[in-house]
Amino acid sequence: MSWIYINDHFLEEDKAAVNVNDLAVQRGYGVFDFFRTRDNKPLFLDDYLDRFFNSAKTLFISLPVNREQLKNVIYALIGKNNIPESGIRITATGGYSPDGYTPAQGNLIIQQQPLIPVSEEKKEHGIKIITHEYMRDLPAVKSINYVMGVWLQKQVKEKQADDVLYVKNNLITEFPRSNIFMVNSGGKLLTPANNVLAGITRKKVLALAPEILPVATVDISLHELKNAAEVFMTSTTKRILPVVEMDGIKIGDGRPGAITKALYKLFTQMEERTIK
Amino acid sequence: MSWIYINDHFLEEDKAAVNVNDLAVQRGYGVFDFFRTRDNKPLFLDDYLDRFFNSAKTLFISLPVNREQLKNVIYALIGKNNIPESGIRITATGGYSPDGYTPAQGNLIIQQQPLIPVSEEKKEHGIKIITHEYMRDLPAVKSINYVMGVWLQKQVKEKQADDVLYVKNNLITEFPRSNIFMVNSGGKLLTPANNVLAGITRKKVLALAPEILPVATVDISLHELKNAAEVFMTSTTKRILPVVEMDGIKIGDGRPGAITKALYKLFTQMEERTIK
Repeated sequence: MSWIYINDHFLEEDKAAVNVNDLAVQRGYGVFDFFRTRDNKPLFLDDYLDRFFNSAKTLFISLPVNREQLKNVIYALIGKNNIPESGIRITATGGYSPDGYTPAQGNLIIQQQPLIPVSEEKKEHGIKIITHEYMRDLPAVKSINYVMGVWLQKQVKEKQADDVLYVKNNLITEFPRSNIFMVNSGGKLLTPANNVLAGITRKKVLALAPEILPVATVDISLHELKNAAEVFMTSTTKRILPVVEMDGIKIGDGRPGAITKALYKLFTQMEERTIK
Repeated sequence: MSWIYINDHFLEEDKAAVNVNDLAVQRGYGVFDFFRTRDNKPLFLDDYLDRFFNSAKTLFISLPVNREQLKNVIYALIGKNNIPESGIRITATGGYSPDGYTPAQGNLIIQQQPLIPVSEEKKEHGIKIITHEYMRDLPAVKSINYVMGVWLQKQVKEKQADDVLYVKNNLITEFPRSNIFMVNSGGKLLTPANNVLAGITRKKVLALAPEILPVATVDISLHELKNAAEVFMTSTTKRILPVVEMDGIKIGDGRPGAITKALYKLFTQMEERTIK
């Protein structure tokens, strides 16, 4: 069993709890972030912490630690748990609100779990997605609110798909837990500019891709996506994962594309450089 | 300090906790309901339980009790706490999900608190509201997700208002925690038909109002609302509360209307009959 850090203690996982009056339980109110470790080293930690502190600030959640203290706790937890290939989740709940509605000082929770890697089959052959008309509340914030994402899982499974892409007013946005990219017929890499979470893997892909093709962050219609040469998703756990079918329609020739593979290689090379 | 019921125990409030792995903390996923007691008697309990079980079912949350068991526990809690005029909140969280994402059996939490009554000043003079473009996810479900409602409080306070009305594509829907009604210039009572929670006080008003004026549940534009003769909100804690100003514009003559007052009287009389 892993150690969990909560407020100022390290506790065994089964003992880490929040009172039922916490605003997360009462109002689904809180923020989090999630990053990986490789060889017990956190990947791109500063990027994730930037986003975490920004999410908390935007939702008016004050934190019991500053950035340096949070880093120290993260490294201490990594040392105690010794799970070299892991995912670490930092959560700041809305806290114990005096009126049950106004955000207070957040309860800070840090959890570490072994990483469940994406199956080789999915990496090799790509995944199938469906679409759903929806946009997250405050998309720039990584809030804990995944009511729609969790609720849609039944539809995803019924349609034998792997994930669901949110579409709003005919513009594509993001998956519940991942960003989307497409290569158009002109050989340009596109990703939605607006109403998406600024994913860290997305950020790295945007930095790396110009080595091999032109890149733009723009509004993208569902129609454009259906006519893409290649589509892939990016996320911390999935890194770069090809999407080969959407709403029952094949993308390109229905197989992962060459640019997707090349970007995956560039991204994993960047990871290697980072942990050295 | 009150007693809280959680799963199958009664605990003192400060000892009632859920593990940080609960889907409420991880994904803001859960449902709840809230009703009042008067003289230690629950008001309209069956209506609230209908909605609670329906919310849980829609979000695929299974409950550790059936309806009769839940009723028994509620009466037992009322007996233990002896808070004659109270609010009781029943929450079913998403539970301890095996993959941190799929709903499991909910953790059932029942909390009772003394009722904080609406101030006489607000009852007498009415409240001011602002509007915001938004619609809740799955509006028919009383989920714990109040990210937008909590987040908007700062704007509400900055504009010296009391609450915020959600408007979607120019149609009015609901407040974060209340329904809305208006009396139009033709003397008809209207409330939004679609994309709102089926409030229990709303239901009672819809049942009582035909005694004094014609009633319709319809789509209502923001323009219609601005030209209303009277506006009021309904909720469990607020019962019927006049709205006298919206986005800085007076409604009618800026004072609570005669029909609002008449309905408030009918509603409180119905409450009296219910607890006798």
